[in-house]
Amino acid sequence: MRKTMLTVLLASTPLAWSAEGMWTLDNPPLARMKAELGAAPDAAWFEHVMRGSARIAGGCSASFVSPEGLVLTNHHCAVNCVEQLSTPEQDRVKQGFLARERSQEVACPAMEVNRLEAISDVTKDVKAATKGLQGQAFKDAYNAATAKITQACTGDAGATRRCDVVDLYHGGQYKLYRYHRFQDVRLVFAPEQPVAFFGGDPDNFNFPRYDFDMSVVRVYEDGKPAAVKDWLPINPNGPQAGEAVFVTGHPGSTQRGYTMAQLQELRAHDLLGWLLRLSEFRGRLIGYSERSPEAARQANATLFGVENGFKALNGELAALNDETLMATKARDEAALRRFVAGRKDLPPETAKAWDAIAGALTSYDAFRNANLMIANGAAFDSALFRQARRLVRGTVERELPNEKRLPEYAEAAMPQMQALLFSKAPVYPDFEKNKLGFTLTKMREYLGTDHPLVKQVLGGDSPEQVAARLVDGSKLADLAVRRQLWDGGAAAVRASDDPMVKLALAIDDAARDLRKRYEREVEAVVQKNTELIAAARFAQSGTGIYPDATFTLRLSYGRVQGWKEGDNDVPPFTRTAGLFARATGAEPYALPPSWLAAKARLDPNRPFNFVTTNDIIGGNSGSPMLNAKGEVVGLVFDGNIHSLGGAFGYDPRNNRAVAVDTAIIVEALDKVYDAQALLKELTGKR
Amino acid sequence: MRKTMLTVLLASTPLAWSAEGMWTLDNPPLARMKAELGAAPDAAWFEHVMRGSARIAGGCSASFVSPEGLVLTNHHCAVNCVEQLSTPEQDRVKQGFLARERSQEVACPAMEVNRLEAISDVTKDVKAATKGLQGQAFKDAYNAATAKITQACTGDAGATRRCDVVDLYHGGQYKLYRYHRFQDVRLVFAPEQPVAFFGGDPDNFNFPRYDFDMSVVRVYEDGKPAAVKDWLPINPNGPQAGEAVFVTGHPGSTQRGYTMAQLQELRAHDLLGWLLRLSEFRGRLIGYSERSPEAARQANATLFGVENGFKALNGELAALNDETLMATKARDEAALRRFVAGRKDLPPETAKAWDAIAGALTSYDAFRNANLMIANGAAFDSALFRQARRLVRGTVERELPNEKRLPEYAEAAMPQMQALLFSKAPVYPDFEKNKLGFTLTKMREYLGTDHPLVKQVLGGDSPEQVAARLVDGSKLADLAVRRQLWDGGAAAVRASDDPMVKLALAIDDAARDLRKRYEREVEAVVQKNTELIAAARFAQSGTGIYPDATFTLRLSYGRVQGWKEGDNDVPPFTRTAGLFARATGAEPYALPPSWLAAKARLDPNRPFNFVTTNDIIGGNSGSPMLNAKGEVVGLVFDGNIHSLGGAFGYDPRNNRAVAVDTAIIVEALDKVYDAQALLKELTGKR
Repeated sequence: MRKTMLTVLLASTPLAWSAEGMWTLDNPPLARMKAELGAAPDAAWFEHVMRGSARIAGGCSASFVSPEGLVLTNHHCAVNCVEQLSTPEQDRVKQGFLARERSQEVACPAMEVNRLEAISDVTKDVKAATKGLQGQAFKDAYNAATAKITQACTGDAGATRRCDVVDLYHGGQYKLYRYHRFQDVRLVFAPEQPVAFFGGDPDNFNFPRYDFDMSVVRVYEDGKPAAVKDWLPINPNGPQAGEAVFVTGHPGSTQRGYTMAQLQELRAHDLLGWLLRLSEFRGRLIGYSERSPEAARQANATLFGVENGFKALNGELAALNDETLMATKARDEAALRRFVAGRKDLPPETAKAWDAIAGALTSYDAFRNANLMIANGAAFDSALFRQARRLVRGTVERELPNEKRLPEYAEAAMPQMQALLFSKAPVYPDFEKNKLGFTLTKMREYLGTDHPLVKQVLGGDSPEQVAARLVDGSKLADLAVRRQLWDGGAAAVRASDDPMVKLALAIDDAARDLRKRYEREVEAVVQKNTELIAAARFAQSGTGIYPDATFTLRLSYGRVQGWKEGDNDVPPFTRTAGLFARATGAEPYALPPSWLAAKARLDPNRPFNFVTTNDIIGGNSGSPMLNAKGEVVGLVFDGNIHSLGGAFGYDPRNNRAVAVDTAIIVEALDKVYDAQALLKELTGKR
Repeated sequence: MRKTMLTVLLASTPLAWSAEGMWTLDNPPLARMKAELGAAPDAAWFEHVMRGSARIAGGCSASFVSPEGLVLTNHHCAVNCVEQLSTPEQDRVKQGFLARERSQEVACPAMEVNRLEAISDVTKDVKAATKGLQGQAFKDAYNAATAKITQACTGDAGATRRCDVVDLYHGGQYKLYRYHRFQDVRLVFAPEQPVAFFGGDPDNFNFPRYDFDMSVVRVYEDGKPAAVKDWLPINPNGPQAGEAVFVTGHPGSTQRGYTMAQLQELRAHDLLGWLLRLSEFRGRLIGYSERSPEAARQANATLFGVENGFKALNGELAALNDETLMATKARDEAALRRFVAGRKDLPPETAKAWDAIAGALTSYDAFRNANLMIANGAAFDSALFRQARRLVRGTVERELPNEKRLPEYAEAAMPQMQALLFSKAPVYPDFEKNKLGFTLTKMREYLGTDHPLVKQVLGGDSPEQVAARLVDGSKLADLAVRRQLWDGGAAAVRASDDPMVKLALAIDDAARDLRKRYEREVEAVVQKNTELIAAARFAQSGTGIYPDATFTLRLSYGRVQGWKEGDNDVPPFTRTAGLFARATGAEPYALPPSWLAAKARLDPNRPFNFVTTNDIIGGNSGSPMLNAKGEVVGLVFDGNIHSLGGAFGYDPRNNRAVAVDTAIIVEALDKVYDAQALLKELTGKR
């Protein structure tokens, strides 16, 4: 559940329902928590769980669970690392991985863990820098202001400090989030994917569920396990039905504050396009996997991501195709517009903000496909192309003053960019050709054979011929070659005869022009006008509301609770007996040998997975589920099918988060994996 | 362009625009044609072109072009036959086919050609039979009435006569269409697919275009070429720019009369679901094709159908995602409802018809996926499964009185059903397994692992295991086995241990129950209420309107005319020089050797393809494009990209039909293929 997620009926009242909300940790809904839970944690609790929570830069959540740097997250949040540490001979995704001692812990090629340290308000600075500006000038000033703010925050400590300006409430507030950055992340434990992702795609976003979706990594500093002050102890008993539980995690993105025009754009273009491309890509990946077991191994993590993304986005599109939801959204928007019309103290341009956004999205029709394919790089799904673009742009951008750079090459972003550029993750040429051939075909489909950029990229060849030439001819899989080009700078890059570098260079002007046009004609207009709408909403509803998700730390409170599906009650817990009953032996219901062997030793009544009313979304995967004492009682790994409409609103009747129970984590580490050292460290029995 | 088809702006006035309309041949818009073209053909002209036009039962149009049974259609309308007549050693799709004398003409395994002979009005009979009935009783009475009417029309002449009751204006009229049926259809000429479908999927639905998308078959009777009285002569010069042209063909399906609830259902469910499944299937087919050249040959025709269907449906969905179009449709519906509210002479239930349809579609949510997968058979995409279902149902249904049967097994439908059951088309086991494995996976995805029907079909196995067991174990590819089961009747079928027969038997009760529920709860409600709406529309607009397309013969009039694309004029003709300029040598822009060799002999200025304002849709492929004298001047094979929204309305500014010019047909048969005998017969130079 890495990326965003049907609900039939949504909150149509301005007052949020119980359990709704992804709250920032500097603005927790204390009064509501007291009223609804009977009590609310104190400031020290919030401070502690903030530092005990973690973000995985690629798009997941996690928690620190030992003073010596152990980090608990989902298997599916670490699967890219596990795959990168595998070989055709040793498939750690299928077979699992356990470091029985610290010397066996292996560095993940491109994993970064962040810990939030402080939040400060920079709204005034950002708004002052962009005041009165429009279009490109607005965007340039915005980028310069955030580069300046983050650089001042990071200073010379970029290797261990990360600072981001976060846009909350769609421009209502800008906050500076300061993180401690860990780039030396080593794999400690990953179970076999067949039990981590038991039930596979068919059971994904469903419940009852039986997934042992956990993994453990450790953060290192200076070659040693990092000393961690605020860590969250694991409660080996899990939670009780009805118990109040808290999720601290990083929900990726919600669109609850979107205007109707933005929602219609999502429905007609963005979501639909993604779903159609993901569907075909899924078919191609399955076809590729059928070539050989090794091909299947290469494509496995990508296929998981594609199927997971497809199911999540499909649920979102279903929500947008629900006429009741859209009518509710239209009514809410009309009510806010009427409110604005009656308030003379709001800026007069506020009344036109909705039409301005709609107009910007309509004007996007003229270059949407070109922007997607060329500027966003959807035409070039290849790890080698991404490296080429980093080299082409990074060597130019690093020569510019920090405030003038593309944000992803600003000083504050350089450590993560370089970690990716110099990643040791393996590259599979046949798989690269397959992905690149597919996306080049999509480029021709979306832009047409006669588009100048299509002619430039393909010449007289087919997409497959071009992909083969680029991948076979490129030396960028070699880390030394990338290092040499990076060190040689823009001149070395321009002089390179590597075909992938040449392609990235050849289209760079066009790609940058498209991006600038998008920023000027769409992004700047949307951002300026959503700021106005955000201010109007504050005036209408006060600041006791939560902002849309932004892949930053949020608190959700809720209870362990099932739901009613049609006429049936779905109980909140599944148990180990159910796992074995569901295991047919055929994929994706085939348990690994370790679990089959341990069956007699396991308590059939042990809680396995459970559901709660917490309001979460893609990005929350790996979040700790905490009890009132701040102990970890569960590990969030999914939402149920009804949670998929959560992008647009929360329905307390059936939107449920799904977690692995710590009771099964502790039992399985003991009785399935005999991971005594790890277990000892995790449960604090030292 | 076999199946249905963005337009930004639609006819929002009750009066249709110039060139709009797919008119039945018994109700041609003579007054409008006179007003707009300066003249209208007489009754004899209509009678003659009706009999000179043909329908290909699988979903295409065609025309009789010689007194000895030659039929002209598109290559893509005969490609299934061409593929079925190919072998791994002789790929006639890639290499083309020419019978230099009649003895070389080869029978197509499953092709049926129909010629419309007469139209009569049976509205009173059908409405009398169903009067006052609801739900299943309505549907049963409707089926019994149409079975009786068609049987009375067919009599004992089923081998050569076909009678269909056609629902026009969504229940506004019911007409009986009587056809002459030709089941002995032999392939005469098919060019190489690389020139027939030059530009492939990227150029499909685009213009300028260079496709030699033609083929010629011959209908036989009693083992001899059929004698044809009404045939349409080919004019070897093609049309002039601006010339009035007439298309007589069989547009498959339009939804211009749909209610808002039906359009929203299409957008949220039907179209979207098809597009997503087609996308993944496309990816899988491409993956399958990459296994070997023979695998690519097996998948070729299917892949064409999938890509063509995807592009067409994608255009339709884009139209439904156009808020302007939907607002126009909503306004028109509101106006008709206001009209109904003011007319006391209409049945009082008319006012509730729209809500009744919306209610039926909402109730469909409860079993839409099961109906699609099990009743419609979307879970079982396998030629062998379709044969098994024909055997299971046909042997039972044929024992029932005609009026009680499922319509596809009524006497009037038996000849086509048996032609399919006893088709000699080859079956490719690996390809069958691939398709069936895919659709069984979709069944599990749509219904869930725990659905009783999913458990019944899969047991404890994976979809791929089940597909392999069914295909490897079935003997239904053997014509003799099918014949034996058919002759043995229901008892033999029940006793069969063929796994595919057993599957079709095992799910038949559930499949029939779902179908009955759909007919009762959805279809009957929609049909009864659209009848009321149709009557209201006649009261509002008179009968000088055309019905939505129903894959029956229609006339469209228009002109040879380009359009304005942005700031550019698109001229109406392409020419041979353009074909060679576009031929890069890489797929799908690689010309076959025959055309490369003939280049110097061909007139570079010869018109190749052209566009007209005719209002057509998928199913019109293969239609003759006639001049005022009734001569064939072109062969319709596609619509431009703007024609894709034609399902919901016609935009005269940019909706264009695309045709092969007879000038290039005649020249290429002479100079590329040296097909002198065929050319002589086609041009009447005898």
